[in-house]
Amino acid sequence: MKAFNNLTDFSNEEIQALIELAVRLDSNPEPEALKGKVLSLLFLSPSLRTLASFQAAMTRLGGGSFVISPEMSIHGIESRPGIVMDGAAAEHIREAVPVIASYGDAIGIRAFAERKNIEADMQENEFSALTDLIDTPYINMESAMNHPCQNLADWKTMDDLNVPSNGGKFVLSWAYHPLALPLAVPASTLHMAAKRGMDVTVLRPEGFELPAALMEKANTIAAATGGSIKETDQRAEAMEDAHIIYAKSWSSTRHYGDKLNDQKLREQHLDWCVDEPWFENARNDCRFMHCLPVRRGVVVADNILDGPRSVVIAEARNRMLAQMAVLHQMLGNQK
Amino acid sequence: MKAFNNLTDFSNEEIQALIELAVRLDSNPEPEALKGKVLSLLFLSPSLRTLASFQAAMTRLGGGSFVISPEMSIHGIESRPGIVMDGAAAEHIREAVPVIASYGDAIGIRAFAERKNIEADMQENEFSALTDLIDTPYINMESAMNHPCQNLADWKTMDDLNVPSNGGKFVLSWAYHPLALPLAVPASTLHMAAKRGMDVTVLRPEGFELPAALMEKANTIAAATGGSIKETDQRAEAMEDAHIIYAKSWSSTRHYGDKLNDQKLREQHLDWCVDEPWFENARNDCRFMHCLPVRRGVVVADNILDGPRSVVIAEARNRMLAQMAVLHQMLGNQK
Amino acid sequence: MKAFNNLTDFSNEEIQALIELAVRLDSNPEPEALKGKVLSLLFLSPSLRTLASFQAAMTRLGGGSFVISPEMSIHGIESRPGIVMDGAAAEHIREAVPVIASYGDAIGIRAFAERKNIEADMQENEFSALTDLIDTPYINMESAMNHPCQNLADWKTMDDLNVPSNGGKFVLSWAYHPLALPLAVPASTLHMAAKRGMDVTVLRPEGFELPAALMEKANTIAAATGGSIKETDQRAEAMEDAHIIYAKSWSSTRHYGDKLNDQKLREQHLDWCVDEPWFENARNDCRFMHCLPVRRGVVVADNILDGPRSVVIAEARNRMLAQMAVLHQMLGNQK
Repeated sequence: MKAFNNLTDFSNEEIQALIELAVRLDSNPEPEALKGKVLSLLFLSPSLRTLASFQAAMTRLGGGSFVISPEMSIHGIESRPGIVMDGAAAEHIREAVPVIASYGDAIGIRAFAERKNIEADMQENEFSALTDLIDTPYINMESAMNHPCQNLADWKTMDDLNVPSNGGKFVLSWAYHPLALPLAVPASTLHMAAKRGMDVTVLRPEGFELPAALMEKANTIAAATGGSIKETDQRAEAMEDAHIIYAKSWSSTRHYGDKLNDQKLREQHLDWCVDEPWFENARNDCRFMHCLPVRRGVVVADNILDGPRSVVIAEARNRMLAQMAVLHQMLGNQK
Repeated sequence: MKAFNNLTDFSNEEIQALIELAVRLDSNPEPEALKGKVLSLLFLSPSLRTLASFQAAMTRLGGGSFVISPEMSIHGIESRPGIVMDGAAAEHIREAVPVIASYGDAIGIRAFAERKNIEADMQENEFSALTDLIDTPYINMESAMNHPCQNLADWKTMDDLNVPSNGGKFVLSWAYHPLALPLAVPASTLHMAAKRGMDVTVLRPEGFELPAALMEKANTIAAATGGSIKETDQRAEAMEDAHIIYAKSWSSTRHYGDKLNDQKLREQHLDWCVDEPWFENARNDCRFMHCLPVRRGVVVADNILDGPRSVVIAEARNRMLAQMAVLHQMLGNQK
Repeated sequence: MKAFNNLTDFSNEEIQALIELAVRLDSNPEPEALKGKVLSLLFLSPSLRTLASFQAAMTRLGGGSFVISPEMSIHGIESRPGIVMDGAAAEHIREAVPVIASYGDAIGIRAFAERKNIEADMQENEFSALTDLIDTPYINMESAMNHPCQNLADWKTMDDLNVPSNGGKFVLSWAYHPLALPLAVPASTLHMAAKRGMDVTVLRPEGFELPAALMEKANTIAAATGGSIKETDQRAEAMEDAHIIYAKSWSSTRHYGDKLNDQKLREQHLDWCVDEPWFENARNDCRFMHCLPVRRGVVVADNILDGPRSVVIAEARNRMLAQMAVLHQMLGNQK
């Protein structure tokens, strides 16, 4: 495996093999599998779960990792091409990224969307500019539109819960949040659920539609896997017989990169905080999923997070296990 | 061992076994003992020795660790129950702590006292609120009133020096410091020395008495171990025939949480800086102990720290060895 | 090996043995060589390559490391002798350095020059004050005038490229940079190239001469190895038949520690940005070396860095390999 960049680059069989490997590594640890192997971790955007779970994953497999984040280096890192570097930044990504990659057998990179231009973000211009600099195997630790480690962990979480793939009903719901957040999790989660063959409903207020190209890709995937894709702003309709509600806030796509108008629009939807009444028409065992961090009382009510519906801690632990499987496949067969 | 939270939870035999294990691991390293095991390190309060010594300890036993500290996560961590999280904090301890714990086989947690209400701090309300969230084995890396890793290291340091337990004379002395520091080290050190069966004198100016409940607990412990507890503000009396002076500054208990009055009172005692004249009536080989960091020329004179009385570097190194023993017992027998 | 402080402390045979070991460890990994061994990493000055490459090196050899940097400890570290510590700093290097060292089997220390007094910096007063506090084997990760890990990596890089030692022509060139940078890299690189037996030309504008004592040492070394040392401000003359141009900016030695006059002088030399015309009289295969980080369009033109002359990424990767050899020799034979 040269890259783990987008879950939809892999076949369902490859995904199931990764999940089986994750399950096996949980019950039968392999603390010698990656002996002496190094994972470089480059965070151009902040992290808690990703930072911790990748370090833990490498240790469990007998290897190790190191972390580079912008606040650790007082140099500052420049990314603009052709710039005369007479300002604050002392280093350019054209040197920093290949050097950091050269110390590892693989590199994980996190770089959130710029959120200025939705087309540029959808084309992953920024992330590609980084990975184009290296030949080292790499893992996408969240880019503008992708978060494959989260997707794989979420798929495994649903397998662990015996949520059906074909016939399973998955609601991806927008929720209120005071900030305009990236599209990486909703976009890649939509594709993950479609890929799993589920009946997916995107529940969101007007102005927060996911981009048409993403919806089309989801439809194409669903057509191949036996799933389906719907979009609505009607909560009761969306939640009917749902197995899963996956909550996440994201930027207004109508006002992408326009903080002021985004804020005006989102503040009309303060009531989009997932709470027990949402589940009226859902299955009794409908579960609540979220990638974390989550704002209590804003995105979701305390009683949901603290009650039996929530599987957010299991999801987060599955991040580590999913990543162990990816690392094992990526690095375990190297000479 | 499910928790290493308070040294007084353990019998003297259990403590001696830990110290023997620490000695053995120093002379006979076991770099495979914790192969593939992960220690999560959560610092809600700052650290240098604890941070470094736990990472080194896990490496020496063949495992690894990762560190989460508030300044590393730009999210900010909320701890108030039932709060609507529409401010700066993006994550609540109710998610963060279980997730961080889930990546490790054990978790170390550091959270200093709030120092607003002495009763709340003595009940360890804040630390318990964290450990109540998890089932993972945990290590107290300093809470409001406990610092068991320091206590175990200090006990071992006195064993290394052949300081007698019964009959050994231990002076726990307040010292001047410009800031109002927590009670964790003096409180838990008092109990450690009592538990070791020593004759303990708490030497402090008026207004800096240790809380009555702590003194009572010390007396109860001493009654069982053959030790004794005294309290005085008379230096010469306290130091008579002392084997050990253990210096530490702490908050005024008379003005707990009241910075202004605490400061007024402590500034009357600028002369509480341990220096050679203090040792006039002590044993010739009376040693100076301190948990570090220590302010030179404020808490203790340079000539003491740089002279033969000081054992502070050995104490600090024993932190690592003591923690290796705890980690070996906690994680070494897991499947 | 008790210390790796200065490349010129080692014979050419010892250096070649280290480089052969580095080559061997690259092709034949030894992930058990330093099992359970700990390297303490103390950064009193910032770092990216050194931070990452030492952590990776220890992992590849089966050991581990921990990092202490000033911004991680809110305590603050005092270094002045005899000071009364009633200000912000809570800890003195006299405790911090021995304690940090005591957790490792070896310690790496980085502390840049103060750049107030050139004589004090040339005597390595500050770095010696740190290493005098410890008995642990130590590695100089860059001090006022030394950067032996960089030097060893650079030597290996030239070996990898089959650049001749005797007869090889090495140009150490000053370049423009908006800040007054330390002398550690130019000083130690000059001695490295002389030690390798090369014909070395120091190319720099007036006012940026390397100190006479450093030039004399270089001459003494060159006399023993069959190399030679020249100094000039004439670019064409310096570059004639050059195998290597090693670019680096450094402080004005005429105005050392005097920022205002240093800046005035350096700003007269904005044209000292290495570009293709510099290579007119050089060998066709003349290579560009730099220790990184490097400012594009300021120190060197993009087309050089992005073209076939540049070996800066290989140099940086050799940092890790060189350090693996040093660590293997320093720690591999301990019981």
